[in-house]
Amino acid sequence: MKRYALAIHGGAGLIRRHGLTPEREAACERSLRRILEQGEGLLAAGAAAVDAVEACVIALEDDPLFNAGRGAVFNGRGEIELDAAIMDGRDRGAGAVAMVRTLKNPVRAARAVMTDSPHVLLVGAGAERFGSARGLEQVEPGWFATEERRAQLERARAQDMVLLDHDAEELDVYGTVGAVACDTHGDVAAASSTGGMVNKRPGRVGDTPLIGAGTYAWNETAAIAGTGHGEPFIRLGACGRVSALVELAGLSLDEAAERVIADLEALEGRGGIIAVDRTYALALPFNTGGMFRGAVSHREPAFVAIW
Amino acid sequence: MKRYALAIHGGAGLIRRHGLTPEREAACERSLRRILEQGEGLLAAGAAAVDAVEACVIALEDDPLFNAGRGAVFNGRGEIELDAAIMDGRDRGAGAVAMVRTLKNPVRAARAVMTDSPHVLLVGAGAERFGSARGLEQVEPGWFATEERRAQLERARAQDMVLLDHDAEELDVYGTVGAVACDTHGDVAAASSTGGMVNKRPGRVGDTPLIGAGTYAWNETAAIAGTGHGEPFIRLGACGRVSALVELAGLSLDEAAERVIADLEALEGRGGIIAVDRTYALALPFNTGGMFRGAVSHREPAFVAIW
Repeated sequence: MKRYALAIHGGAGLIRRHGLTPEREAACERSLRRILEQGEGLLAAGAAAVDAVEACVIALEDDPLFNAGRGAVFNGRGEIELDAAIMDGRDRGAGAVAMVRTLKNPVRAARAVMTDSPHVLLVGAGAERFGSARGLEQVEPGWFATEERRAQLERARAQDMVLLDHDAEELDVYGTVGAVACDTHGDVAAASSTGGMVNKRPGRVGDTPLIGAGTYAWNETAAIAGTGHGEPFIRLGACGRVSALVELAGLSLDEAAERVIADLEALEGRGGIIAVDRTYALALPFNTGGMFRGAVSHREPAFVAIW
Repeated sequence: MKRYALAIHGGAGLIRRHGLTPEREAACERSLRRILEQGEGLLAAGAAAVDAVEACVIALEDDPLFNAGRGAVFNGRGEIELDAAIMDGRDRGAGAVAMVRTLKNPVRAARAVMTDSPHVLLVGAGAERFGSARGLEQVEPGWFATEERRAQLERARAQDMVLLDHDAEELDVYGTVGAVACDTHGDVAAASSTGGMVNKRPGRVGDTPLIGAGTYAWNETAAIAGTGHGEPFIRLGACGRVSALVELAGLSLDEAAERVIADLEALEGRGGIIAVDRTYALALPFNTGGMFRGAVSHREPAFVAIW
C-alpha cells in the first residue's frame, strides 16, 4: 500500500462564528477539500513531499479566500507584500522570499531560491529579479487585490488597528497558508505563504519566510508549518522548536506540537501548527478560536474543519 | 564582587596569515581590546546586558576594520545593505532590521524595533522610515563605504565570486560582528550586525538578522551570536539550537556550542559562535582558520585573539 500523509491550513485566528457567513464557511471548506484532494492525488501517485506541499501552497495562493497570493491583505500603505518559504526534509535545503509584489506565486520563488541559488532568503526587488530571471510568472500588483481586502483595509484604518487578515470585528484570522507532507519514500517537506497583517507597517516581515520560525522540515524529526501572530513564533523559533523537542527531548510529534502551542501562550502568542513526521503521524493543534485546516493520510480519509 | 561576562567577535573565516598584514592584525586586536574594555566597564558599573551588547556592536559598526556599519562590504550592485539584530534574554524580546542603507547604526534600529514596535523584523525602506521617525541618525549611503571595500568588490567581480568579507585570496573572513553578555543581575543578551557578503546578490539576507539563526538570547539557557556562512546557520537554526541543546538535552554551554559547530559542518557550514550563560560561562568555538574575538569576565582578564 502507498503510504503518505498531508496536512494543509488556510490560517488560524480568533474566528468568530458570527463574522463568518455560512456561505463563506462552506466555500472555505470546499477550497480546502479540493486542495487537499489534489495534494493527496500527487502523493498517492508517488510525488515527492516537496512537490506536493509546493502544489498545495500554489493552489492556496491562487484562491482569493485565503491571505496569500491572490486575496492577500493590504499593508498600511495600501500595498500588498508577500512572503513564502519552503523546506525539504531530506537535506534541510530551504528557500524563502519576502516582500515580493509582482511574483504570482511566491512559493515558486521560494522553491527556486532553494534549488537554484546558494542563498536561503531573498527580499524585495532582488527576489523579484531572481524569480523573473528564472521565468516565474509576474503580474501587476493589482492582480493580487480583491475588493473584500480593500474594504478590510479601510475598516482597519478607521480603527487604526493592525489586523491579521480577518482580524478584530469580523474573523480575527491570522492569515497564512501552509502545507506539510510525508511522501511514499518517508521524506517530509513544509511550505508556507502569506500576505501578512492587514494595515501592517510596510517592511514588516513575519514568521512565514523565516526558516525555524514559521516553516521547518527535517526527515529526522518532522515537517512543520505555523500560522498565527508572527512575532511570538519568531521569538520562540516555534517550528524549529517542534523539531528540537522531537529530536532532543524525545517527545512524540503530538506532544511536541502541543508543547510549542503552550510555549507560544507564555509569550502571549496565538496561532496554530500543522506537522507531520516520517511515521505519517499528523498533529494540528491551535489555541485560537479556529483554524482553517485539512488533513489526509493513507490511514485516514480526508477531513476539513475550521472550529 | 560584581559578576559579569562578555564576549565579542569581528567575524570568522578562512583567514590566511599571509593575507592579514601584521599591521592590520595588530589594528584589529587593538580595536577588539578597546571595545571589550568599553563593554566591561559598562557591565562592571551595573549596566544591563542588553545595553552592553548594543554598545559593543555600535562600536564595532563604527570601526571600519569590521564588516558592519562603516566598512561594510558592497553587494553585487555596488550598494551596501546592512542587517542587525538584538535579543534580550529576560523576556526573549527581539528586534531586527535588514537591508537598511542609511541608518548609521543598524543595531540601534534593531533595538528600537524591539522596544518601540510590536514587530520583530523590519526590512528596507520601512525599517529606515521607522528608525528615522525615532530620531536615529541617518547618513548618506556613501558614509559606510571605504576604499578598501571598493577594491575588494572589484576583485570579487573580476573573479565572479561571492565573497564573505575578506574571502578567497586574502582573508576569507565571513564578516559579521556580535556581542553576548551576562550582567550583574544574571540577565543575558545578544546582538549582531553585518554588511553581508562581498558581491552578494541584492536582497540576499543572511542569518544575522534572523532570530534563532544568527542571534538568540534566553535567560534560561544562554545568549548566542553566530558568524560565518549564513545559509547553513539559517537551515540549522544554529543559535537557537545552542539554546535548545542546553535546555532540552542538558548539555553544558561549551558542549552545546561545540555540537552546533559540528552540526554546521554536516551542512558544510563554516563559522563560529560566541555564547554566554547566566553562570557566566563563556564559549567561543569556530571551525574556520580564525575568528576575530575577545572575551572577559569577573573571573578572567580580557583576552583577544584571531587564530
